[in-house]
Formats: sequence, structure tokens, C-alpha cells
Amino acid sequence: MQVAMIEDKIVPVDELEPVYLDRGIYFGDGVYEVVRSYNGKIFALEEHLQRFANSLAAIKIAGVNIDQIRGRVRKAFEAAGISNARIYFHITRGSAPRDHNWDTNLQPNFFLTVTELPSDAEEKNKGIAVSTHPDWRWKRCDIKSLNLLANVLARHDAAQKDCAEAILVNEAGFITEGAGSAFFAIFGRTLQTAPLTANILPSITRKFAIEAGKNIGLEIIEKSLTPQQASRSDELFIAVTTKDIVPVVKFDGKVIGDGKPGKHTKLLIQELRSFTV
Amino acid sequence: MQVAMIEDKIVPVDELEPVYLDRGIYFGDGVYEVVRSYNGKIFALEEHLQRFANSLAAIKIAGVNIDQIRGRVRKAFEAAGISNARIYFHITRGSAPRDHNWDTNLQPNFFLTVTELPSDAEEKNKGIAVSTHPDWRWKRCDIKSLNLLANVLARHDAAQKDCAEAILVNEAGFITEGAGSAFFAIFGRTLQTAPLTANILPSITRKFAIEAGKNIGLEIIEKSLTPQQASRSDELFIAVTTKDIVPVVKFDGKVIGDGKPGKHTKLLIQELRSFTV
Repeated sequence: MQVAMIEDKIVPVDELEPVYLDRGIYFGDGVYEVVRSYNGKIFALEEHLQRFANSLAAIKIAGVNIDQIRGRVRKAFEAAGISNARIYFHITRGSAPRDHNWDTNLQPNFFLTVTELPSDAEEKNKGIAVSTHPDWRWKRCDIKSLNLLANVLARHDAAQKDCAEAILVNEAGFITEGAGSAFFAIFGRTLQTAPLTANILPSITRKFAIEAGKNIGLEIIEKSLTPQQASRSDELFIAVTTKDIVPVVKFDGKVIGDGKPGKHTKLLIQELRSFTV
Repeated sequence: MQVAMIEDKIVPVDELEPVYLDRGIYFGDGVYEVVRSYNGKIFALEEHLQRFANSLAAIKIAGVNIDQIRGRVRKAFEAAGISNARIYFHITRGSAPRDHNWDTNLQPNFFLTVTELPSDAEEKNKGIAVSTHPDWRWKRCDIKSLNLLANVLARHDAAQKDCAEAILVNEAGFITEGAGSAFFAIFGRTLQTAPLTANILPSITRKFAIEAGKNIGLEIIEKSLTPQQASRSDELFIAVTTKDIVPVVKFDGKVIGDGKPGKHTKLLIQELRSFTV
């Protein structure tokens, strides 16, 4: 008899609920998105659905109907009735006995949560501290996959240092991005961030931050930074769907500017918010 | 109301079964082992439990009692009554609403399956074909974690080429290991495999293959190989718990030796089998 065991309980394999055989848990064989709403309105859903479709294609999960996903997101959002909501969803390749190879007839699994966003007022007003960590992630960070252990360990290291985010540094000594955010520096009237490569997520908030930067008259440079360069910047911030732009006022213990959110960063927050109404 | 959605069904978050909130699925935040039995006897369980403890420590999952894990493995193996069994088990950091940071009070989740091993006689007698794939994995392959999407995609690519295993090649052009196995080449009376680094799993079957190599009088060299060097070897094989040693007779389409399992490889299979009785 093929058996499974959950904690101390033995269960015949045939009687296991499919969720226990999800390839998401065995292999992280799935992709996800996080979208948010502002005052009852989902922001940039089409951009997120497009990226989700790209991630699915990149790991060869076929047969997902994006219109159906859009419908589910809207239905769950309405059912939740949360004004400022975080909507998380993932699709895994499906449930099957563990095997690296997959059966192309496998039915993908969909899972979603809608939860209330905590207030980000304090982080926005005071700014956050960040610390660097080696970028241990895989070589396809352009895919928003469920393989996030490197991000989790880096974020934990940051938390141990009383920092709100880990800024990842690759083997060449350059910053790629945050463990869960894009990373930006401002020098004078120049806004700098790493270019999009296979080592970086094509962040949607990054795109809007660049657009906001142009709108307020900043010059945009897409070029990787070293931690040394970042620590000497005039302003720093991170960009992430659930918090849009958050000022960074301390970088590896070094105070940035006067230790308060920078003036351009504050303008960018306002400008980006204007996109959401 | 915080809501979840499973396929098309809306469920209040509070009523979700904990398995849906497993950090294993959100982040691959867990580690695993695969052990096997030969004729009713589990092989090298202590080595696997030691590596499991190392993996747990490396990702900072604390409070797991290895004696308890040993007891569960033995209990499930006995309940299954399978003579030649594959025993898979993982521990994840636990179930909680999705957040990269973790609560140190979280209770880890344990899951195990015992399934029957298919016969490997044909693969052993005829050998297998393998193909190379870029090594997309993260920088801590010494940890046996649930972040295996790179391995899954590489194995799929191999399967598309009618190959049984993908041999991973890093950016420097060197072979690290197989997507799910260690990789060895024989030149004359020399057995060569990559050295243990952060980019390689400390494979237990690799260790036994080296021991077997010494026993049959081969010189051991732990040094990385290029695909070109591998394709010009006298013999190739992979080593993996569930199949011990499997001869490789074709490498990226190139026939190795006379296209049949090599003589030293056959001796190594016999020698390694002698460890298991």
C-alpha cells in the first residue's frame, strides 16, 4: 500500500486530498501576482494579468484562460468588500504524485486571497531602513514564480537588523532589486534604477515610478548601482505594489540625506497616487 | 471580510484549512529528503537525517526533533510494507497568512509519502541519454530545499529531447550536477566529479559512488568538467538515491564509448549494491 503521512497520521495515498499533491509545494512549480485596490478600485489589473500570462508561458503552464482569472479576481474583490485590499493569486501546474516531469494533461490549481492592506502612513512619513544581502535567487527572476526562499531568507536577515527590506547584491557587486520591491536612487535631478534583465522582476510599480519621475521632470537612468553609490545618493526609495513608493532613509546603517524622506521622493508618491484615482 | 478563493469557490480566510496557507506553497519555504529501501531495508537513513538537519538549520527552521522524524519514517515504511520503496518527506516552516517574514512560534508542517520504486533494470542495462541545460538554480544548492522550478524546467527540456536527465551547466561553462542527480565521468582509471560547493547538493549517493570507486581501484578527482570534456570521456554515469548508479551512454547526442554501459560503471553498480545488503 502506498501511504502518506501528515504529521503523525498515516493516510493511504489514494485518499489524500489533491492539495497535498500540489506541485506548488513539491517544486514551487507555479507563478503568482499581487494586485491592490485604492479606495475600492483595483489598480493596474491589466498590467498584472499580462505579466501573469507571461510568467505562465515562461514556465510552460498552458491552457489558463486569463479572462476567467480576471473574472475571479473581480468576483473575490467584490465579495470581500475591502476598500484598500491586497489581492494575491497563484496558479500551480496542478496536483500529481511527485515527479519532476509533468503530464501535459494536468489541470492547473488556482488560489487567491483578498486581505486588508495595513496603513503605510508611518513608513511613508518616516521612511524605512534597509540592509543589503547577497542575491541568492535563481537566474530567471523575470518570472514571478513561487521559488522565493532566497527572498524569504534575505528579508529575515533584514528584519534581524531592524530593517524593513533587504536590498539584493549580485556576485558582480551590483544591486539588482529588493527582496520584494524595486529599488531607486536619486542623485540631484536624476532617478536611477537597475535595467530590466533576467535577474530582475519586470516590476509594474517600477514602471509607474519611472513614469512619475518623468512627469516631475527627473532624468531617468536605467543602470545598476553598487551599495557604495546607493549609500551616497541624495534620496533612496523602494517601489512595490502593496505600498507603491516608500522612502528609504537608512542604507546599511548609513543615514541618507537628512534622514527624512527626500523632496523628490515625496513628489513621486503624490504623482504616483494621482495615477490611482 | 477577508476571503480566499479556490478555483471558483469563495471561502472565508478564517475557514481555510491550514494546508492552503502552507509557506511551502507560497515560498518553497521548506526542505526535503528522499530515502529508499532495498529488499525491505532502508538504506543510509542516518546520512539522510543528518543532511535533513543541516538543511533545516540552513534555512533556520528550528525545533524539529530528528528522532521524531526517524520514528515517523520507520512507522510509515512499516505501514506501507513495500520492499523497494521510495520514502519522500518534507518539512515546511508552517502555515500562516502570506508574509515573507515569519513568526518564530510557527509550527513546522511534516509530510511524507512511501511509494513503490519502479524497476530500474532497463536503465541500468541499456544506459540513458542526457542533455545539457543552463543551471538556473539559486546560489544555495547545498540546501535541499523545495525551490525546484529550475530543476523541473531543465528536466522537462531533457524529456523533450528524449533524454532521461538534464545535466546543468553554470555560467562559467562547467557542469555542476544533474537536475536530480550527481554526475560522474571516467577517463581511463580516473573517476571525476565536481567538488562540493554551495552550487552542488552534498549528494549521499555521490559519496557512496566515490567510496565504491576507491574500492574498485579508481583514482578520484573532484574537479569540475566542461560538457566538451564529458562528451570525450570513456564512461559517464549519474548517481541518485532512487536509482543509485545509472550509466549514461549518450551526452547531448554524442555516443559515449561504444554506446553501452561502461565496464567500470558496471563494477561500480555491483560495488554500491554490496553496501546496501
